[in-house]
Amino acid sequence: MRRLKVQTDHPYEILIEGGLLTEVPEDLKELSLGHRYALISDSNVSEFLGEDLKRLLQEAGVDCELFVFPAGESSKNMDTVVELARQMVKAGFDRKCAVIALGGGVTGDLAGFLASIYLRGVPYIQIPTSLLAQVDSSVGGKTGVDLPEGKNLLGTFYQPRRVYIDYGVLATLPFEHLKNGLAEVVKYGCISSPELFSFLEEKADRLLHYEAQALEHIIYESCRIKAEIVTQDERESGLRRVLNFGHTIGHAIEAAANYELLHGFCVAIGMVAAARISEKLDLSVEPLSPRLAKLLESLGLPTRIPRNLSPAQITKFLRADKKVWKGRLTFVLLRRFGEPVFYEEPPREIIEETLEELLPEETAS
Amino acid sequence: MRRLKVQTDHPYEILIEGGLLTEVPEDLKELSLGHRYALISDSNVSEFLGEDLKRLLQEAGVDCELFVFPAGESSKNMDTVVELARQMVKAGFDRKCAVIALGGGVTGDLAGFLASIYLRGVPYIQIPTSLLAQVDSSVGGKTGVDLPEGKNLLGTFYQPRRVYIDYGVLATLPFEHLKNGLAEVVKYGCISSPELFSFLEEKADRLLHYEAQALEHIIYESCRIKAEIVTQDERESGLRRVLNFGHTIGHAIEAAANYELLHGFCVAIGMVAAARISEKLDLSVEPLSPRLAKLLESLGLPTRIPRNLSPAQITKFLRADKKVWKGRLTFVLLRRFGEPVFYEEPPREIIEETLEELLPEETAS
Repeated sequence: MRRLKVQTDHPYEILIEGGLLTEVPEDLKELSLGHRYALISDSNVSEFLGEDLKRLLQEAGVDCELFVFPAGESSKNMDTVVELARQMVKAGFDRKCAVIALGGGVTGDLAGFLASIYLRGVPYIQIPTSLLAQVDSSVGGKTGVDLPEGKNLLGTFYQPRRVYIDYGVLATLPFEHLKNGLAEVVKYGCISSPELFSFLEEKADRLLHYEAQALEHIIYESCRIKAEIVTQDERESGLRRVLNFGHTIGHAIEAAANYELLHGFCVAIGMVAAARISEKLDLSVEPLSPRLAKLLESLGLPTRIPRNLSPAQITKFLRADKKVWKGRLTFVLLRRFGEPVFYEEPPREIIEETLEELLPEETAS
Repeated sequence: MRRLKVQTDHPYEILIEGGLLTEVPEDLKELSLGHRYALISDSNVSEFLGEDLKRLLQEAGVDCELFVFPAGESSKNMDTVVELARQMVKAGFDRKCAVIALGGGVTGDLAGFLASIYLRGVPYIQIPTSLLAQVDSSVGGKTGVDLPEGKNLLGTFYQPRRVYIDYGVLATLPFEHLKNGLAEVVKYGCISSPELFSFLEEKADRLLHYEAQALEHIIYESCRIKAEIVTQDERESGLRRVLNFGHTIGHAIEAAANYELLHGFCVAIGMVAAARISEKLDLSVEPLSPRLAKLLESLGLPTRIPRNLSPAQITKFLRADKKVWKGRLTFVLLRRFGEPVFYEEPPREIIEETLEELLPEETAS
C-alpha cells in the first residue's frame, strides 16, 4: 500500500492499493470520524460497489446507511443535494455523522459539497472509483454542483478526511473510463514530471491492461503532483491554474461537443493544441507535440478534433470559458515537459491555425 | 463611531454608528473586496433601504446591482439561493465580485450562505438592519438555509469581511422588532456581563425610545461579548453553546407556537425559565428570576407562556431541539448573572413544574 500525506489546512492521507475497499471498515473504525456514516453513491455504482461496501461496513459493526441518486452529470445539481440532505435528516443523521462519497467525479463533487454544508459541515471520506476521480477530483478539496448556466458554479473548498483509492475497482468500469483518466495522468507528466511522462511512454501497454504495479505508480505520482500544487495554492488564486494545461481548448471542445465526449478525450486534444501553440510562439525549447501525440495515441486517446466539430465552433466556446479572468484568456503552455508557463491572450490567428491543423487528416484544409 | 475587531481565522471589523449607511460606499472603495457588488435584500428592505444604498454606491462609482427575494422566513431555502445565484451568473458576476447582505437575520443567513458557495466562495459584507441581526446573527459566521425538516439544516461557517451596523435604521422597522433584539441583549448580560445587565435596567426607557447613545453601547457590548465567545469556539463545539441561554425552552416555545411569535419574545420566556430552573436546582447563588423578569417587563418583553400554549405542547418540542446531543438535553443555566454553567438533563419534573409556574397568572394551576 502507498500512503500520501496531503498538507492542506486540514492535512489528510490518501491510501492507494488494489483491493483496498475491503480494508476500509477497519480503517474507518480507527479513524472514528463519526458514530454513523452516510454512504453516498449513484445508481450505477451503488449496485455493484455501494451495496457491497455497506455490507462490509455493517459486518464490521460500523453504523452505515446507503443513499443513492440517479447516475449522470444531470444529477449534479442543488435539487439532488437537497434531496439527499432531507433523506439524511429523516434518517436521523446528526452532527456526529460523516459522509462517504463512493463513485466517480460527480459523486465526489456532490457528496463532498453535501458534507460541507450538512448541519454546517460534517467530515467526509472519498472513495473514487474511476481513474479520473482517483487522479484528479479526489485531491484538491473542490466540491460543487452545476447550475443551468454552467458547471461547478456553486460549491466549496472542503478537504476530505481520508481518500481510499482502490485501483482494483477500475476494471468494473468501461475501458473508455480508464483512458479517460490516463489523459489527466499525461497532463501531470507534462506540467510537472518528465519521469512520469517517460514512465507512461514505457508502460502504456501495461496500463491499458490494468497492470497493478503500473497503475499504483501513476496514481501515486498523479496524486503527489496534484497535492503538491494545491497545497501551495489551496484557494486557486494562481499556481494551481497550471492544472488547466490542455483544459482551455479541452473545455471548449467538451462544450462544443455538448458534453457527449469524455473529459479526458477532450483534454488530450487540448494538450496537443497547447503543445503546438507553445511551439508556434517559440516558447518551447524542444519539440513537444510529436512526442505528446505519440504517447496519447499509444494510450488510445485522440489527438485530433472530432470529425463533427469545426474550429469556429470551438473558438466560440473559448471565450466563454471560466478561465477568462477580467476578460483575458490565459493559456497554460510549456517551455519543456515539466516546465509550464502562463501565457495571456495568445494571438487569435495562432489558436485558429492550430485548430485547423488538428482537424482530422483527410478533412484538413 | 465604535469599531470592533473580531479575531476569527479571517479577522474582520464591525463598525457601529447612527447614519453609517451613507459612509458605506467610501469605506467599501477603500476595502476594495471586488470590482462589483451584488447587493442582496428582501422585498421589504429593498424598497426603503436597498434602492437607497444602491444609488449611494453607484453615485460613489461602486459597480453594484440589487438582487431581491421575497421577504419572510419561507424564502430561507435552497431555491432562493439557486435563484439568486443564477441571476448573478446571468448578470456576469465572476469571482472578483463580492456580496452585500442588507437586511435582517434571514437575509444575512441566506446571502452569507450564497456568498460562501458562489463560485466556491466570494467575500461578503453584512449590513444588518434589525436589532436582532445587529447583535446576534451578524457576528459568528453562521450562514444557512432551512429544509422542510427543520431550520438552518444546510449552511456554512463563513466570516464576513466587514459588518456595518447603522442603528439609525432601526426606527424604520416595527417597534416589536426593537424589543425582539433587546431580548438577545439581555441574554448577553445574563451570560457574560453584570454591567450590561445593570445598564439595561437603568436605560430601558431610553432604549425603547431609540436613544442613540444607549443603543450604540448595548450593540457594541453585545457584539463584543458574542465575538469573544465565538472566536474561542469558531466551529461551535463547546463554549459557544452558552449563547443558547434561554434558547432551549425558547426554541420549544417558538416551535410550539408554530413560529408565529418573534424569536426574542420566546427567548425572553426561555430565559426566565432557565433562571428558575437554576434556582430550583440550587445552582444559583443568588435569586435571579425576579430581577430578570422585572428587566424583561421594563423592556416590554413577555415573561410568561402565551395563553394558547400548554406546558405539554412545549415539552414535546424540547426533545426535538437541535441541542439534543447524543440524545442528551443540555441546558445553559446560571450560577449568577455573568456566570453560566452547562447542565445536562435537568429532572423532567423540574422543567414541567417551571413551565406550570410560568403559565399566565389567571390560568396557573
